[in-house]
Amino acid sequence: MVFGNMGDTSGTGVCFTRDPNNGTPELFGEFLINAQGEDVVAGIRTPRPIAEMNDVMPDVYEEFVQNTKILEEKFKDMQDIEYTIQEGKLFMLQTRNGKRGGESAVKIAVDLVGEGLIEKEEAITKVLPEHLDQLLHPRFPDVELQEYKNAVVSRGLPASPGAAVGCIAMSNEKVVENKEKGIPSIMVRDETSPDDVEGMFAAEGILTARGGMTSHAAVVARGWGKPCICGCTALNVDETKGEITISMEDGSQKTYKEGDFISLNGQSGEILEGSQTVAPPAITGNLKTFMDWVDQFREIDVLANADTPPDAKEARKNGANGIGLCRSEHMFFKPERISKVRQLILGDAKQEEEALQELLKFQREDYEGIFTAMDGLPVTVRLLDPPLHEFLPSLKEQNVLEDCAEQLGITIDELKEKVEAMEEVNPMLGLRGCRLGITRPSIVEMQTRAILEAALNVIDAGVDAKPDIMVPLVGKVEEFRKQKSLIQNVASKVFEERGKSCDYKIGTMIEIPRAALTAHEIAEEAEFFSFGSNDLTQMTFGYSRDDVGSFVPDYLSKGILQDDPFVTIDTEGVGQLIKMTVENGRGVRPGLKIGVCGEHGGDPRSVQFFSNEADLTYVSCSPFRVPIARLAAAQAAVQKDMKK
Amino acid sequence: MVFGNMGDTSGTGVCFTRDPNNGTPELFGEFLINAQGEDVVAGIRTPRPIAEMNDVMPDVYEEFVQNTKILEEKFKDMQDIEYTIQEGKLFMLQTRNGKRGGESAVKIAVDLVGEGLIEKEEAITKVLPEHLDQLLHPRFPDVELQEYKNAVVSRGLPASPGAAVGCIAMSNEKVVENKEKGIPSIMVRDETSPDDVEGMFAAEGILTARGGMTSHAAVVARGWGKPCICGCTALNVDETKGEITISMEDGSQKTYKEGDFISLNGQSGEILEGSQTVAPPAITGNLKTFMDWVDQFREIDVLANADTPPDAKEARKNGANGIGLCRSEHMFFKPERISKVRQLILGDAKQEEEALQELLKFQREDYEGIFTAMDGLPVTVRLLDPPLHEFLPSLKEQNVLEDCAEQLGITIDELKEKVEAMEEVNPMLGLRGCRLGITRPSIVEMQTRAILEAALNVIDAGVDAKPDIMVPLVGKVEEFRKQKSLIQNVASKVFEERGKSCDYKIGTMIEIPRAALTAHEIAEEAEFFSFGSNDLTQMTFGYSRDDVGSFVPDYLSKGILQDDPFVTIDTEGVGQLIKMTVENGRGVRPGLKIGVCGEHGGDPRSVQFFSNEADLTYVSCSPFRVPIARLAAAQAAVQKDMKK
Repeated sequence: MVFGNMGDTSGTGVCFTRDPNNGTPELFGEFLINAQGEDVVAGIRTPRPIAEMNDVMPDVYEEFVQNTKILEEKFKDMQDIEYTIQEGKLFMLQTRNGKRGGESAVKIAVDLVGEGLIEKEEAITKVLPEHLDQLLHPRFPDVELQEYKNAVVSRGLPASPGAAVGCIAMSNEKVVENKEKGIPSIMVRDETSPDDVEGMFAAEGILTARGGMTSHAAVVARGWGKPCICGCTALNVDETKGEITISMEDGSQKTYKEGDFISLNGQSGEILEGSQTVAPPAITGNLKTFMDWVDQFREIDVLANADTPPDAKEARKNGANGIGLCRSEHMFFKPERISKVRQLILGDAKQEEEALQELLKFQREDYEGIFTAMDGLPVTVRLLDPPLHEFLPSLKEQNVLEDCAEQLGITIDELKEKVEAMEEVNPMLGLRGCRLGITRPSIVEMQTRAILEAALNVIDAGVDAKPDIMVPLVGKVEEFRKQKSLIQNVASKVFEERGKSCDYKIGTMIEIPRAALTAHEIAEEAEFFSFGSNDLTQMTFGYSRDDVGSFVPDYLSKGILQDDPFVTIDTEGVGQLIKMTVENGRGVRPGLKIGVCGEHGGDPRSVQFFSNEADLTYVSCSPFRVPIARLAAAQAAVQKDMKK
Repeated sequence: MVFGNMGDTSGTGVCFTRDPNNGTPELFGEFLINAQGEDVVAGIRTPRPIAEMNDVMPDVYEEFVQNTKILEEKFKDMQDIEYTIQEGKLFMLQTRNGKRGGESAVKIAVDLVGEGLIEKEEAITKVLPEHLDQLLHPRFPDVELQEYKNAVVSRGLPASPGAAVGCIAMSNEKVVENKEKGIPSIMVRDETSPDDVEGMFAAEGILTARGGMTSHAAVVARGWGKPCICGCTALNVDETKGEITISMEDGSQKTYKEGDFISLNGQSGEILEGSQTVAPPAITGNLKTFMDWVDQFREIDVLANADTPPDAKEARKNGANGIGLCRSEHMFFKPERISKVRQLILGDAKQEEEALQELLKFQREDYEGIFTAMDGLPVTVRLLDPPLHEFLPSLKEQNVLEDCAEQLGITIDELKEKVEAMEEVNPMLGLRGCRLGITRPSIVEMQTRAILEAALNVIDAGVDAKPDIMVPLVGKVEEFRKQKSLIQNVASKVFEERGKSCDYKIGTMIEIPRAALTAHEIAEEAEFFSFGSNDLTQMTFGYSRDDVGSFVPDYLSKGILQDDPFVTIDTEGVGQLIKMTVENGRGVRPGLKIGVCGEHGGDPRSVQFFSNEADLTYVSCSPFRVPIARLAAAQAAVQKDMKK
């Protein structure tokens, strides 16, 4: 024994009934002889593992272990316990469900079902969306490689899992300054206090020299799912000099300055030199088991917003039931395409036609890749949406302007005039979406042809392609009718040319308040609806997302807004339009497929509204957030069930 | 007799039973011996006045006069008749209610009541809003002055009344080109045909050398209420040279080129050199009688949008029941004020305070003038609405930037940086309205103080001031609550300082879709609502008024839009929100005063919706359109009555 006096019969500590980092069903806690709990939490003294209590006072330890079992059975969850021992007598001071990291939340949920303590349905409620978010953070894939091992310079307590890479920063100011420049930081401190929260929050990860698994840094970082390594005793932090020194195992020292890059493996506690390679996580093991349960309970589909074949593959890996939004114009920005897009927009009739032919090839290839990745699942392609001037060169980019003018065979001044003529006062409310599709039908025709030719091509190769063509920014049913007839004409031509056809649907975004108000008319024509909840929020509130920075923070701090309406759906205003749309749309076309493809589709509280109150068919979100949306949908279903 | 053969017994012509220009109850028509009606309408031959038929064939004329009386009694309106005489026998070929100009429409309506042919209620339906529009066009006030008389160079047929001033233009292209440059045109043609309609429409007035009172130019111009002089035989139009020549009474000739200014008095048929002074019309005589009837029938109030004391006086003269929208910031652009406004926006705390004090004085004076003009009627003042950057100098105005930088004691570069920092991507959806009032409360405080101090000042002078303070751009009731409490605090201070108080109301604009959707909450707090139907249309449709030029014309021509929604209210979409707001608002606060102050308030079809379907308390429109809105409101009430 290395601490205390063997004859001591008093002690204090905190203990989790399972490991809050990885969920291992063993006591996980700390024990200080003759100390107050506060000292443990503050991390001022580094305590000893709880198992060592058994060496000092085995009877007390035996009683403690029995107590933890009783508490877990009673509360059906992992417990976080404060205890004290006075003159050999154990007092359980407090118990509550323990906070945990993502990995442990999933393991504990799965284990509790295995141990017969809870049902699957309850297990689903024990993993928070934030937990999954942590698990879906990138990890180091190369931990077995020698190169990785060589980069390890020290180890600390693995206080919060995940991989973090950033440059050393020792103050709130430095972290925030880096973040504004787009540079990731690792906040390195001797120990942290509430004063450091701003920097900790903005940092990718946290490293401290002092403090245990329940120190301020550890507790806070776990709450956020941010990688953290605590109590790295080999670390010396010199804020005055702006450098850190690490005592190496061979007795030498390594010094790093603020701004040098390091990497933290919050899983293993390893601290590494430089920027190590990170990779997305895989859904395997307990997480796979858990997500399978999730899918048994949820009542709505979860689709992904994916614009490229790699995105589509990622989405499928994450369990997406299809693609709810393919913003095909995102592919227009690739270097070899953007010049063709500019030629299409600014060129004469011949140049436009030539550009359309080139873009048709690119788009067809994209769609082939996406249909193949999503074999058997629906792929919803939105026709061109943004204002065309978004694709034009900035008037400040002289060399781009030169290239573009040369390509078009016009002078730079003529080009500038054309670019300026396309500027809009409020581009958000200007010539975009189907307004473009109606005034410049050739783009819609090219995109439709690309979608359907791609579908026929991959069907030939045995793929089950399910294209859904989505018309953006409809406000009047007449707009939809015009676009639908255009699409159907192209389809007829393509099918005739190819001597065969395929199934496809034509639907619309509901993102203009007027579309929501006239959903009963639009549903007569459209085969599916998808709420563009970002734009619907912009127009229902009259907020431009690009400009709200000047007042929304003030609104949040003054309590005028409870939530940022671009993060969590405004159920009262925007939600009212959504419910009205669903009711009126299905009134005309029973069973109408209705989804949402704004960013709210990946927000758990919004998903609950979409599932339980709006009765949508699906939500669609970024591939990365698909598992979170699946969980949120399952929790919504379980909650609805409990209310019955 | 100067025409035909006295022995002729055939003829043809068209005839109005009253004068379609001024309403005089005498036959007004034309008569051609041995000619077809088509020749008359085409203006190819200049026919003789109908009264001369009496000289040629008195029996036929006697029969004709009797027939016109029978027809007027049967149809209870002025008739437009085609007739032919074959071998002494009169055939009435066709009759219909005759088209008429504004002056005659009013006189005929008043006369028909006087003659006992119709009731007042029916008379109201006989004057179209377009007729009033014509009467409310400017006139030449100086016709009795020698200066005016000296400017008269010729006379033609007074084919359509009103005063027009513009430069000579001989082709559609020239008129349209002028219009684009903001230059008014008079379209001058030998005679007009349907090919000339584009130029005629864009011109201020029309002058032809040939054709009578029922020629193409005359009929079309009267339909539009556009001044027109036809059949000016002294005029010679040389399109090739681009000049016109007028043969003067003294035998001399005057030549004018395209681009020279002339003036037309459509009332008298006088053609004048140069730009003559024009003045607004007065509501007197028949028009006064008619408008008094209008006010007896209408069920909603008509207020005016007026920003200055002269506007307010004009509004009252036109019969406004108050001011529904005083955009106080319109007064900020006056030269002596704009620099203070810029100091307020960009200055430091001391400069801001100083600017507020100066602006307080200006605003108080403005409000005193407006309250005095509207003695006894409500004056609704909207607090600052537009984005602040609208008041800042353009980055291109170097000398304004210099002055502004000097005033603020900063460098031009610093100033440019401040101005650039305030630019917004979508200013329409950015920091404006109550968002400004909440983030920069000092402006609201100053404006509230100016309003209430002005009210107390004029009340001291015996004026009955009725201030309504209106908070713009509310989307959440919390925004309104904050602004209301700010206003109430200022009111308490002012009333305490002055040792007396006055009545005032605090209400809000409903112009954000979310406000309409949560009207039941906002009505708990607001004492009145006013629809900002321009903004509500922008956001419900997702159309920026500044940018719709790129697609709305296309939408109108393709039938996607039946009407421009910024001219005539979209009853289906925007109207649905309006009706919902009225129902939910009055559900909470019975009898809630609800008006509309967008430009739709002066559009007759929109007024009918606001009166009969939306059940609003009032519409508010530009002072100039108040009589039209009064008529539209009366017609709506009569129509509703007829449906019962």
